[in-house]
Amino acid sequence: MNALGRHLLIELQDCDKEVLNDLSFLRDAMVVAAVACGAVVLGESFHRFSPQGVSGVVVMAESHLSIHTWPEYGYAAVDIFTCGTTVEPEKAAEVLIEKLGAKNHSLQEIQRGPLVTV
Amino acid sequence: MNALGRHLLIELQDCDKEVLNDLSFLRDAMVVAAVACGAVVLGESFHRFSPQGVSGVVVMAESHLSIHTWPEYGYAAVDIFTCGTTVEPEKAAEVLIEKLGAKNHSLQEIQRGPLVTV
Repeated sequence: MNALGRHLLIELQDCDKEVLNDLSFLRDAMVVAAVACGAVVLGESFHRFSPQGVSGVVVMAESHLSIHTWPEYGYAAVDIFTCGTTVEPEKAAEVLIEKLGAKNHSLQEIQRGPLVTV
Repeated sequence: MNALGRHLLIELQDCDKEVLNDLSFLRDAMVVAAVACGAVVLGESFHRFSPQGVSGVVVMAESHLSIHTWPEYGYAAVDIFTCGTTVEPEKAAEVLIEKLGAKNHSLQEIQRGPLVTV
């Protein structure tokens, strides 16, 4: 049984706290990550919170990439949702782990659309 | 141990296929769902694919809401990621299940940021 989508849920810990608060840096990093995994970027929406933290999403032809950061904890939650066989979501994860300076991380993969046989 | 975020992953099956292909309807439904759970909408990005299918994300003050649809299978993958105690993500799920005419669905909740005690 194949799934329609692959969904990587990534917890990035002990990140560079300044980076986690830098909307411009994070937007660039997310687009670079999307391209690195072979995806086509269609749109994005980012927002910086007061006093800290950034949320952002990149919509891709192959689904989406999202990030929510908590600089006060050095933590970011990243989701990489892809469909199709032309993308390698692990490469997007590698880019973000490196760019955010995450000293620790955990990753789980969930198959989406598992009841559909394709 | 508390988590920073609640993440509902929802598989909507046997949906209204026409609705799954209607970007305008889906964008409105997603915004209504976000508001229904008590969230504040900050931005959105939606895209319709050829020959079919829609992807879209709503960025909220309390994280994000995303949807990817496969009209050919009557299937939609919905994610509701929220933080804070002022929102009830189940209410957003109820809105989308109803508006998309999903005859079947499954839902799993994942705690995000579980290593941080708040």
